[in-house]
Amino acid sequence: MQRHVEIAEFTELTPGAPITVARHGWRAKCLQRLIRLNLPVPRTLALPVETVRAIAAGAMPDVGRLAAAFGPDLLVSVRPSPEHPEWGGPRSVLNVGINAARHAALCDSHGTEAADALYLRFVQSYATHVARLDPDMFTAEPGPGALDAALAAYHAETDDEFPQDPARQLAEVLRSMARAWEGTTARLLRQAKGAPAEAPLGLLVQQMALGIGRGFSGSGTIQFVDGVTGAAQITGRFRGQVQGRSASEETFYLTRDPRGASLEEVAPRIFADLVAHGAACRVRLREEMQLEFTVESGQLAIIDALRVPRSSRAAVKIAVALANDGVIGREDAILRVEPRALSELLHYQVDPRAPRDRIARGIAASPGAATGRIVFTAAAAQASAARDEACILVRRETAPEDIRGMHAAHAVLTERGGVTSHAAVIARGLGLPCIVGASEIQLNPRDRTLSVPDGRVFREGDTITVDGTNGEVLAGVADMLEPALDDGFRTLLRWADNVRDIGIRANADTPDDARTARMFEAEGIGLCRTEHMFFDEDRLTVMREMIFADTSRDRRIALERLLPMQRADFTALFDIMAGQPVCIRLFDPPLHEFLPHDREGMRELAEALDRPLSEVTRRVEALTEFNPMLGMRGVRLGITVPEIYDMQARAIFEATVEASRHGAPVVPEIMIPLVSAAREVELVKTRIDAVAAAVKNEMKARFTYRLGVMVETPRAALRAGEIAEHAAFLSFGTNDLTQMTYGLSRDDAGRFMGSYVTQQVYREDPFHILDVEGVGELLLIGAARGRAHRSDVTLSVCGEHGGNPESIAFCRAAGFDYVSCSPFRVPVARLAAAHFALLSPKKG
Amino acid sequence: MQRHVEIAEFTELTPGAPITVARHGWRAKCLQRLIRLNLPVPRTLALPVETVRAIAAGAMPDVGRLAAAFGPDLLVSVRPSPEHPEWGGPRSVLNVGINAARHAALCDSHGTEAADALYLRFVQSYATHVARLDPDMFTAEPGPGALDAALAAYHAETDDEFPQDPARQLAEVLRSMARAWEGTTARLLRQAKGAPAEAPLGLLVQQMALGIGRGFSGSGTIQFVDGVTGAAQITGRFRGQVQGRSASEETFYLTRDPRGASLEEVAPRIFADLVAHGAACRVRLREEMQLEFTVESGQLAIIDALRVPRSSRAAVKIAVALANDGVIGREDAILRVEPRALSELLHYQVDPRAPRDRIARGIAASPGAATGRIVFTAAAAQASAARDEACILVRRETAPEDIRGMHAAHAVLTERGGVTSHAAVIARGLGLPCIVGASEIQLNPRDRTLSVPDGRVFREGDTITVDGTNGEVLAGVADMLEPALDDGFRTLLRWADNVRDIGIRANADTPDDARTARMFEAEGIGLCRTEHMFFDEDRLTVMREMIFADTSRDRRIALERLLPMQRADFTALFDIMAGQPVCIRLFDPPLHEFLPHDREGMRELAEALDRPLSEVTRRVEALTEFNPMLGMRGVRLGITVPEIYDMQARAIFEATVEASRHGAPVVPEIMIPLVSAAREVELVKTRIDAVAAAVKNEMKARFTYRLGVMVETPRAALRAGEIAEHAAFLSFGTNDLTQMTYGLSRDDAGRFMGSYVTQQVYREDPFHILDVEGVGELLLIGAARGRAHRSDVTLSVCGEHGGNPESIAFCRAAGFDYVSCSPFRVPVARLAAAHFALLSPKKG
Repeated sequence: MQRHVEIAEFTELTPGAPITVARHGWRAKCLQRLIRLNLPVPRTLALPVETVRAIAAGAMPDVGRLAAAFGPDLLVSVRPSPEHPEWGGPRSVLNVGINAARHAALCDSHGTEAADALYLRFVQSYATHVARLDPDMFTAEPGPGALDAALAAYHAETDDEFPQDPARQLAEVLRSMARAWEGTTARLLRQAKGAPAEAPLGLLVQQMALGIGRGFSGSGTIQFVDGVTGAAQITGRFRGQVQGRSASEETFYLTRDPRGASLEEVAPRIFADLVAHGAACRVRLREEMQLEFTVESGQLAIIDALRVPRSSRAAVKIAVALANDGVIGREDAILRVEPRALSELLHYQVDPRAPRDRIARGIAASPGAATGRIVFTAAAAQASAARDEACILVRRETAPEDIRGMHAAHAVLTERGGVTSHAAVIARGLGLPCIVGASEIQLNPRDRTLSVPDGRVFREGDTITVDGTNGEVLAGVADMLEPALDDGFRTLLRWADNVRDIGIRANADTPDDARTARMFEAEGIGLCRTEHMFFDEDRLTVMREMIFADTSRDRRIALERLLPMQRADFTALFDIMAGQPVCIRLFDPPLHEFLPHDREGMRELAEALDRPLSEVTRRVEALTEFNPMLGMRGVRLGITVPEIYDMQARAIFEATVEASRHGAPVVPEIMIPLVSAAREVELVKTRIDAVAAAVKNEMKARFTYRLGVMVETPRAALRAGEIAEHAAFLSFGTNDLTQMTYGLSRDDAGRFMGSYVTQQVYREDPFHILDVEGVGELLLIGAARGRAHRSDVTLSVCGEHGGNPESIAFCRAAGFDYVSCSPFRVPVARLAAAHFALLSPKKG
Repeated sequence: MQRHVEIAEFTELTPGAPITVARHGWRAKCLQRLIRLNLPVPRTLALPVETVRAIAAGAMPDVGRLAAAFGPDLLVSVRPSPEHPEWGGPRSVLNVGINAARHAALCDSHGTEAADALYLRFVQSYATHVARLDPDMFTAEPGPGALDAALAAYHAETDDEFPQDPARQLAEVLRSMARAWEGTTARLLRQAKGAPAEAPLGLLVQQMALGIGRGFSGSGTIQFVDGVTGAAQITGRFRGQVQGRSASEETFYLTRDPRGASLEEVAPRIFADLVAHGAACRVRLREEMQLEFTVESGQLAIIDALRVPRSSRAAVKIAVALANDGVIGREDAILRVEPRALSELLHYQVDPRAPRDRIARGIAASPGAATGRIVFTAAAAQASAARDEACILVRRETAPEDIRGMHAAHAVLTERGGVTSHAAVIARGLGLPCIVGASEIQLNPRDRTLSVPDGRVFREGDTITVDGTNGEVLAGVADMLEPALDDGFRTLLRWADNVRDIGIRANADTPDDARTARMFEAEGIGLCRTEHMFFDEDRLTVMREMIFADTSRDRRIALERLLPMQRADFTALFDIMAGQPVCIRLFDPPLHEFLPHDREGMRELAEALDRPLSEVTRRVEALTEFNPMLGMRGVRLGITVPEIYDMQARAIFEATVEASRHGAPVVPEIMIPLVSAAREVELVKTRIDAVAAAVKNEMKARFTYRLGVMVETPRAALRAGEIAEHAAFLSFGTNDLTQMTYGLSRDDAGRFMGSYVTQQVYREDPFHILDVEGVGELLLIGAARGRAHRSDVTLSVCGEHGGNPESIAFCRAAGFDYVSCSPFRVPVARLAAAHFALLSPKKG
């Protein structure tokens, strides 16, 4: 026995009605707001979610009172009203209540063509969505005979006449929509949008406002900003004499336009009303709204409204404009822009409207897009740059010696690696579009070709486009959107700076990086890696001489030649940063990174050093390591070959004096990498203090400096207390710390990380999102112990995670002083930090 | 002005005198004990440490009362008495008080020759140690004219007569000895023995008991056990008519001897007295003592006594004998043997008395010694073994494919590596003498030669000896001492087992290891690594087929061929262990360890697999990792290529059923390596449970098994709580955990570990001694969280540290259930655990 449910529980949308989003859905609430603004919304009744759920559960709707509310000439639409506009819902059904009698009346009042179109539309909807007949049979355009054919088809398929009772029509429509919402497809779709599987649905029954009539009629949408650019501009569409699709429609421009008729000219009063309604919505609803409206013989009706869909750049512009106009506060403006969306604005993007010839996919490792000719070596990239030709560097993976080639390239594509591989890290630092782990491509460096899954072969010099935002490699040239670092962008971030309560610095190794950091208004450099400075060709040779030196004296002689170059490096950075803090990490990588590993390279080196090849080979072999990540690098090198740190400290101090003499005073920060015991810090500190004293004497200058530790081994986090006794700051290097906490090399993780995340072995790639449970606990332990031993110790994160909103929230909660991230992540970080400050203000 | 100190503060050694070790030194206390036993000790006065310190500080000793105590005919010896016998001290000075008058009297009573010898001896001592004259001038043997020459030389050098006042002689001797104790050399020497730099000295003044006289006279030492073997046997020496070195001495055997006269025959009463004194000492001092004695005209005097110096094997034998005789308790016997000393007893040792032709030094990585012919490859080692010829495997470093060669060799010598390198770990497991990191040697594998620092070149086939106990490589054959796994050894360890309160298991991978573990009475296998099982030539081929399989099905087919072999491996282990627990670690290493890395090997593989060489090369390259330690291995492989664990689980369960049917019931323990997230355990557990269910059905058998986790990443320790929810046991793999906590690869650490420990950057090599502060804290965190989530979770350590006394103490204090170590470390571990149980009993 089927249970009946009487649709008694409905509420008319009046200004004072008890309508809530939770009980009636967003659309019900939105329409009520329009009504309160005196917008001409047709009469609308809202069915609450519990009624809709009962119907879906099988109860038969008894629509008596509901139908009666619209009087004898029932003609309504039924619209879905879920809790959130993005959660979708079944398609609206229009013209419910039409039947032969009503059709006849409409033929009189609106003409046969219009009446036919309205009836046909309902028959088609009902047949496919309610009676579930084959949709292919009900696709005819309105026209002579189409209505009769549809009614006949309905009869043939159901052995029944098309239902003529308006109340029955309404009941069936409600039931079909309630059930559609509970279907598997609808559930999956809304879950993909972030809705809970059991999200409820409200339904709205609205008096039809026809876009057809004897007088000026039509329907359209209108909005008052551009959804792509955010500029104040009326856009939308209006078609005359139409209700949805129709053959006899006539298209109007909204505003005056030389190309044709416009609503503004044809119906100036209606147009003016729409503009007034838009303005009212903007001020009272505090949002840019898109209005859906009809005009029936000169009568305007607003039948629906929606927040204007917008690109990231439009979102920024709209929020800033609303705040500047006093419609919303600045804090509200800040919260209206999703931080991650900002990174789109910093780079060229493939125009989403343009066609794409995708040839492969990989991991989107650094956002933005670029087009250029394929090169397979760093040397070829540099040659390209010399010819002023855009190129894409394609490598199996990149290594430190490729850095200059990456500088020269417009984008990077690698076959291997993950989001924190060398290529990815460097590319993000350079703001260079980058795809890594594109394992679908087959690289044949010998033939200088690249094969892609569909069988095409690309050669050196062929043009491709790398879309680092979504990880797609495209053949040929693609249309691009320009970066949007405009006033709105800058304004919003300044507002964000005023509310955030954690510092944001940038990781910057080169003057270019530093300038980018300044452009994005980072509060200093949180991590300046110095090793890249030794890869210039002239420096590399000296570096190798140093490595091959047999005595400390010979090492010193080689390093003395590097000293002026390093000093110039640091002076340049200090000058650019103009007094902002610069945290310089002492030399970190294993020495063998500076040696050639192929026979040819070793022969050249033997010649250059005038030593037998066998000796060069032996030394290179002796320096090779099983696990370079866990080998002789960082402070271990600093203690075993102390001449390197001595030289670097001297270069830093001499640059400090020099830069302070011609610019803002500099207080350099020196950071010791890979510490695992407090005594390491003690030993290095003693030598660096001595160098500082010597430079002060020699240059007759005064300066102070801060010495700190990069906490990147689990042991350094555990022993942070005693380490802090010798360190003014502790900066957590979460890249290496993650590697060691998991026992997982980021360079080797790519082969299984995908399947690990898919199987939910790891909730997220820990190199991408900070592992709060494991690595995060070490951060908390380290921070607490560091502070306990030295209450003024500066705490920060300088790993790749630094710019992630999740990490910023974590570090802020843990009381860290700042995070440091790639320059191109700085805007995201500034905005995200402001969000957290607004959403969870600190106590005290 | 020189301050005078009156030597009033002295105490005669009488049975009731208030003599303490702290105030008068060990020798004073020891002599008092002998006096209490009524041994004929000459009158002895003890100077307390504060007096000696005052003299050393410059006070002038006033010996009036002291000298008076010995009457007018002062003739005494002065002996040092530090707090501990091993802390050395200045040389004793004899015959203090002799002068021209006394010499004349002695000529009458003892004869001119004897009197001359006594006076000469004192003049020589005084001249060199007190007057600090050139020792070369005072070395003459006693004989006609020697005394006069010495006195003349003294006069010539000092422009003074030799001092004739006995009291002055005594004062000067006391002063010189007090000062010598404060000298730099003496300080360094005693610090090397573990003494504090400021350790004090007591001095003893003893009435001279001459070994010279008209009747039967002489001096000697006697002890009642053999210091090398520990056997009950009288040894020592006796020389007639002598006091120290002398030309006219006559040597006697102590006991009857066909080769010549013996004390036992010549002076049976004295001999019997000595034996009685020895027996009294043994019972009353509860120790085997060595007695120093003199006989003056038939009068016996005991002038000093010392605990018998003993080898490790003698220490065990003596302690067990004392306990068996009821002289000491068993617990006392246990505490009298230093645990580390036991490892000497398990292996052949180079006889310390034999000459050594040392050609190089390295790190003593696995104790014991062996002689054999040099081979440079594992294949050559196997060929040697086939010819039944002892060989020493010499490699730059060893890799898993060398394991069979190591099995075949009698010792291993490598140029590289540290105490936890592959060679060292495997060698200790095999009980094979091993030296690693012998960087002094130059290996030329191509010429098959080995150059050593002194320029000698050794070729394949030349004989050398590897002394893994002290890290020395010797040329040729060396005399050896046999292992001493005798009854005393077994008895002592059984006693230790009765008191210890932490379990000791062995790490055992092969039936040979398991048998060794049983021989040393380990309580099961705590870590059975399974990967070596795949290196047999027939298995390696199948393994490689598995690696090259393109589908899961092909992988299964290859693995099915390995299944019976694995099952046989496990059945053998279960049979040997006879119901004791066996903890099997699932496959751990990265797959590329099973692939060839040179061109030749790859060509052979391509042939064997019937695939193009280019494909083989590409696959091998693709599997190569930057940091294999942190790569795709352990459970990561188990999840990504689950067929391997499936096969291993099936082999374990089928072996369980088989072994249980013909022997003791088996409850296998299965351990998952390299876990970093609880979900990994969950996933593997689900599959293994399914395999168990299938095997039970197929074999119609019942069995239970325990699944646990090897905690070897810092993250696993931090997340031990949730991991324990799926794990019956947590076994801490401290090797890898140390590597990851420090960010330090044990294979690469060798290059700087030496200088790190020397500079005290690390207090100890953390791969050798458990790092209690860092790694230890992770153990404590892991243990506490594991227990909190699962109170009955079994906790253990199975890394190389397992057998170290320090680690055992730590694990015991932390409430661990057992430690697991190399089979050859089991005896040390059993004894050390007993020591801790006795020295710091657990509460409750």
